[in-house]
Amino acid sequence: MLLKKNIPISYVFGKIKLEIALLAIYSVAVYVAHTYLNFPGVSIPIAIPSILGTIISLLLAFRSNQAYDRWWEARTLWGAIVNDSRSFARQVLTFVDNSYDDEDKRVLKERMIKRQMAWCYSLSCHLRGQNAHYCVSKYITEEEKQSIDNMNHVPLALMDQHGNDLRLLMRMGWINEYQQVAMDETLTRFSNAMGGCERIKNTVFPVTYSFYVHILVLLFVLMLPFSLIELFGVFQVPLVVAISSSFFLIEKMAIHLQDPFENKPTDTPTTAISYKIEQDLKQLLRDESPKESEPNRPVDKSTIYYIL
Amino acid sequence: MLLKKNIPISYVFGKIKLEIALLAIYSVAVYVAHTYLNFPGVSIPIAIPSILGTIISLLLAFRSNQAYDRWWEARTLWGAIVNDSRSFARQVLTFVDNSYDDEDKRVLKERMIKRQMAWCYSLSCHLRGQNAHYCVSKYITEEEKQSIDNMNHVPLALMDQHGNDLRLLMRMGWINEYQQVAMDETLTRFSNAMGGCERIKNTVFPVTYSFYVHILVLLFVLMLPFSLIELFGVFQVPLVVAISSSFFLIEKMAIHLQDPFENKPTDTPTTAISYKIEQDLKQLLRDESPKESEPNRPVDKSTIYYIL
Amino acid sequence: MLLKKNIPISYVFGKIKLEIALLAIYSVAVYVAHTYLNFPGVSIPIAIPSILGTIISLLLAFRSNQAYDRWWEARTLWGAIVNDSRSFARQVLTFVDNSYDDEDKRVLKERMIKRQMAWCYSLSCHLRGQNAHYCVSKYITEEEKQSIDNMNHVPLALMDQHGNDLRLLMRMGWINEYQQVAMDETLTRFSNAMGGCERIKNTVFPVTYSFYVHILVLLFVLMLPFSLIELFGVFQVPLVVAISSSFFLIEKMAIHLQDPFENKPTDTPTTAISYKIEQDLKQLLRDESPKESEPNRPVDKSTIYYIL
Amino acid sequence: MLLKKNIPISYVFGKIKLEIALLAIYSVAVYVAHTYLNFPGVSIPIAIPSILGTIISLLLAFRSNQAYDRWWEARTLWGAIVNDSRSFARQVLTFVDNSYDDEDKRVLKERMIKRQMAWCYSLSCHLRGQNAHYCVSKYITEEEKQSIDNMNHVPLALMDQHGNDLRLLMRMGWINEYQQVAMDETLTRFSNAMGGCERIKNTVFPVTYSFYVHILVLLFVLMLPFSLIELFGVFQVPLVVAISSSFFLIEKMAIHLQDPFENKPTDTPTTAISYKIEQDLKQLLRDESPKESEPNRPVDKSTIYYIL
Amino acid sequence: MLLKKNIPISYVFGKIKLEIALLAIYSVAVYVAHTYLNFPGVSIPIAIPSILGTIISLLLAFRSNQAYDRWWEARTLWGAIVNDSRSFARQVLTFVDNSYDDEDKRVLKERMIKRQMAWCYSLSCHLRGQNAHYCVSKYITEEEKQSIDNMNHVPLALMDQHGNDLRLLMRMGWINEYQQVAMDETLTRFSNAMGGCERIKNTVFPVTYSFYVHILVLLFVLMLPFSLIELFGVFQVPLVVAISSSFFLIEKMAIHLQDPFENKPTDTPTTAISYKIEQDLKQLLRDESPKESEPNRPVDKSTIYYIL
Repeated sequence: MLLKKNIPISYVFGKIKLEIALLAIYSVAVYVAHTYLNFPGVSIPIAIPSILGTIISLLLAFRSNQAYDRWWEARTLWGAIVNDSRSFARQVLTFVDNSYDDEDKRVLKERMIKRQMAWCYSLSCHLRGQNAHYCVSKYITEEEKQSIDNMNHVPLALMDQHGNDLRLLMRMGWINEYQQVAMDETLTRFSNAMGGCERIKNTVFPVTYSFYVHILVLLFVLMLPFSLIELFGVFQVPLVVAISSSFFLIEKMAIHLQDPFENKPTDTPTTAISYKIEQDLKQLLRDESPKESEPNRPVDKSTIYYIL
Repeated sequence: MLLKKNIPISYVFGKIKLEIALLAIYSVAVYVAHTYLNFPGVSIPIAIPSILGTIISLLLAFRSNQAYDRWWEARTLWGAIVNDSRSFARQVLTFVDNSYDDEDKRVLKERMIKRQMAWCYSLSCHLRGQNAHYCVSKYITEEEKQSIDNMNHVPLALMDQHGNDLRLLMRMGWINEYQQVAMDETLTRFSNAMGGCERIKNTVFPVTYSFYVHILVLLFVLMLPFSLIELFGVFQVPLVVAISSSFFLIEKMAIHLQDPFENKPTDTPTTAISYKIEQDLKQLLRDESPKESEPNRPVDKSTIYYIL
Repeated sequence: MLLKKNIPISYVFGKIKLEIALLAIYSVAVYVAHTYLNFPGVSIPIAIPSILGTIISLLLAFRSNQAYDRWWEARTLWGAIVNDSRSFARQVLTFVDNSYDDEDKRVLKERMIKRQMAWCYSLSCHLRGQNAHYCVSKYITEEEKQSIDNMNHVPLALMDQHGNDLRLLMRMGWINEYQQVAMDETLTRFSNAMGGCERIKNTVFPVTYSFYVHILVLLFVLMLPFSLIELFGVFQVPLVVAISSSFFLIEKMAIHLQDPFENKPTDTPTTAISYKIEQDLKQLLRDESPKESEPNRPVDKSTIYYIL
Repeated sequence: MLLKKNIPISYVFGKIKLEIALLAIYSVAVYVAHTYLNFPGVSIPIAIPSILGTIISLLLAFRSNQAYDRWWEARTLWGAIVNDSRSFARQVLTFVDNSYDDEDKRVLKERMIKRQMAWCYSLSCHLRGQNAHYCVSKYITEEEKQSIDNMNHVPLALMDQHGNDLRLLMRMGWINEYQQVAMDETLTRFSNAMGGCERIKNTVFPVTYSFYVHILVLLFVLMLPFSLIELFGVFQVPLVVAISSSFFLIEKMAIHLQDPFENKPTDTPTTAISYKIEQDLKQLLRDESPKESEPNRPVDKSTIYYIL
Repeated sequence: MLLKKNIPISYVFGKIKLEIALLAIYSVAVYVAHTYLNFPGVSIPIAIPSILGTIISLLLAFRSNQAYDRWWEARTLWGAIVNDSRSFARQVLTFVDNSYDDEDKRVLKERMIKRQMAWCYSLSCHLRGQNAHYCVSKYITEEEKQSIDNMNHVPLALMDQHGNDLRLLMRMGWINEYQQVAMDETLTRFSNAMGGCERIKNTVFPVTYSFYVHILVLLFVLMLPFSLIELFGVFQVPLVVAISSSFFLIEKMAIHLQDPFENKPTDTPTTAISYKIEQDLKQLLRDESPKESEPNRPVDKSTIYYIL
């Protein structure tokens, strides 16, 4: 609850500053033309814009529903990445029995878990169109870095390395064949989550629908002052601005929600989630991570604050 | 059905006391200004607020739908925790064959099942932002307590201990490799349920939507008395209060439903569900639990009563 | 299709007899007061109740949607119980190879399949708050009856016995470890279905929503005669009754659908489904069941007839 | 796209011939009474039927949504049967290694795949209340026919035989235990699809909802001519017929969609799908099926043409 | 975001050129008849078309919802094909241990992965009714080509070959029995995705619904000029065109979305997705594909641009 109270009103309205300004000018102009210039104008019965308003509400509600579903699916996919990363780490740590503290085993386990962190960051960068090679450099070894150097699809290459390490674990006899298949299923789930994110990223929301709704909203806004001027006089200006900007706001929200991987402050907080996964996996590694990485946390917070 | 009849009306309206009071004062003021002070006022045609009402109903219905979906998903996740806790206990009890009543086996089985109870309580505390270390102290051994002492994420640490015990069971030869993987899948489901709850907890419902609906409701409420005063005279006061408070009520409900882990009397009854899991697992342990823990039950009941 | 034609109209309206009577009296009273007593009354423009009607329709439609979803989920869970019971019986019969007609094997297989019937009946009773111990007595042995005697949660205890029998099958070498895990997965699905039903049973549908809709319907009904009296005169009485009782009917339907385990003639036909499962499992057991159990069938039929 | 153009308009309207005729007579009668007989009549303001129309549209839209969901679920279940039948055949063919062309293996494999065809046809007949024994006779051996002779539930009995054959394969050492369980999972999916279809078949769509909507439509239709007569004169007759028959059409569609297994030309094309499965499995068997079975295909086509 | 800005307005309107032209002519004719020819005409109160508009919006919104669901399901199925193709390749590469660089193993692995590419292209062609034999020729060996030569259902035949290769891998001892079953599960998922696409392709969207909505839209369009002429005079022409073409646009969109495999520029980009899978699998094969295949990429881009 606290989170919401902290959202500055200015942020919300900052998104539609321009629209509000134009709207205010337009409705003042209508008022002036009507009152002082005795411009006859077309007096539109209130029924037309209000019923247009009902239609727009209906379409807008359906549209935000679909945009919300895309956004929530993206969030759920990243939630699944959190879950599966933890499960994967648990499998790595408990399937490979290291009671005698074998250094080789310890190194391999750590390498796999760190690569999982790298995979999360690389997927985050990949989806946002950033250089995924750069994102993962902190978490993987030099050798791994070289082998993915000329790959286009970094997360896919890292998944492939996971698979190779599973084969290695199997060949060393550190896991049995049944455990290999169980861990391969976890990799399949990662693959599904990755593909799901790419599907949302690459599939454009049907454009005509948005376009049509936008035209109706404009039509509505243009008519509104002519309907309200007789009834409210100068008070129509704030009314027009309030009602119209509501429609614009909700339209903007749908546009933001429908593309959740566009590297805007309002999208799915993939970096923050990756950071959280890193923390959790480090806890599981019992790797007392230096507290100096804490300061990164605010990134997380601010991202959540401003989810539109 | 009985449950519902017991909900005191006062509880339902207690949520919107302030709004009702302000509404009454406002509409009386409008009545007085209009009737006795001969305040000309703006007479708003009934069409405007009533169509605004249709729009609000539509948006509110969609919004409660989405809030309801979050709430129901949270409930379903906790339902899955109940199911999986029972399945996990059944697996512990039936996979480990203890026909000769081996004390070591008995102790380990009991430890795992009690840790499962601890996990449920710790997740409940973790989600509500309470001290999870304190919640679990009744159910786990001193040794376990120490090992999770400097962990931030208690449920995750307990899951890790579950994994370690699975490895132990495997090394002792008490379960075979298939059974280890089958039980590991149950742990994966716990991990998914935990991650799902955290996802709902940490993802803010799109704020603009709520904000927009709230503004429309206020606009509607401010206009309503001016529309009804001509038709109904003084009777507009109860009408305004009744219609407006309906909108406020339904808005409040959506706000409560959309954040199901906020430690309010109306959220998902995680403590009661954890208690139920404890009872069920104790039955499976054939551990005739002392009846003095019964008195805790009312917590459960009262929580259910007041689900808004 | 036949089923529907058989539903007596009287049954449908029996649900709202009282409401219809009160409505008729009220609208006649309004007519009399208006026409003969020259009671001035408040003449309400038709716009108000008709737009209120639109709002109510919208909310009612959404609400029946959610209630329908609960009901359909309950039905689907019981459908899953049918499927899994058949699958479980098939697994018992085909995994345990009894080519040499070993009496011990035959007895154990029959015991497990009969216990599955008992589990279905016990879950049905448990959900409806009936004495589950009594429901299962026909299907399980004396020994089993004693062991569940002091258990509160009978279906859970029966599931536990299933698990024990799986362990027994495994220890006897009648199934292999892989088959044990596969059958344990079936038990997990039973556990999930059971938990899902309990979740629906124990989670109250958000009360405020129902309450709010109910208040709006009452408001609508109270206003309606005053709006129609001028236009229709005495004909307003049947119109008021017809329109209002539609709203009441649909509200009643939602209330019935949202609580599908309340032991009313209209809820999920758990007894009939359990009986169907019994028949199917008996066919699989090639146990030519005596035809004298057929007469129970009508319970099934009548239950289905009157699903509201 | 071609498919749709071929639907004769007469077919669509054939469904509501009677309603259209009655409507035309009724509205002509209203016109005659109003115009020539100077029947005063009740002039109903246009607001009432048009708002009633909005309410009906809303409820009808929700209802067709739910009916559509049932129909689509039925279609999806049969889609799953197609998929799983192919998967099952693939498993039979590739798990049982027949490199040395063992006649016994070949016969058993063919028997199982043909029984799968039989199962699809038998489920189709079972759901439509036809004699399932007759449907399967072409595909199974005499021996199998006898063993299911006194079974009520033919598809269930065939599934049981599948299970027995799996056990046989296992006992012969032709598949390993792991493969047996994997194929058993496929049988479980068949069992789930079968149970899902039965659930849809046996669960009546809530009747009150349909009933309520139907009453509202009638009320609307009866009022409509009185509202339009003043505005449109004799032109009200085609208008009344057009608008009303739209409502009737959409209502009819919902009724057809909600019961997808009623052996009408418009339901789920289970026979056509079974035929398709037969063709696909024959291709997998490399059994060059005689082209004389092709003529059955038109059944498929015509069924699809007339999906309402 | 960029993508959308690039969609030429002309493309969007190109779809409804004819409708717009007819509409303009019709409304001009109404204007001329009304104004200059003193054609009395029927003056329709604004209430009728505007409420008709609300009804149409509602039905259209529901319909586009269902069409969108079909389209999104088709997209999700192809997303699953991407995921599973990657998982399958990973399984082929990591389950078969080729540390000593055995040429036979290398060839077989490459053959299976290339056949997977072929399967994607063949499914794409099969769904669009193109010659699937032609589509796959680039990816499979001569021997494979011959064996599928007289098959109708190419993707199904390729799946069967995958199954045969799995058996071969198993017989050679290159994978163990668990791994065979795990890879068979991947084949089952391909089978499910293929069946799901065929289901969407072969199931006609309920025609009556579309038909009904279309009739209402026409009715609305025919009435609109008569309602607006009095209020707006000549300005009714652009208004009629704007509002009506919005309805036509949204109707067109629903028609396109509901049939996502019709080989139109606006359907699911199956070729582009197949190409992407090819690239990803080639990366996994570490097969530095020649850059001259890049020029094919634009096909992908343009397809995505014009998703309506």
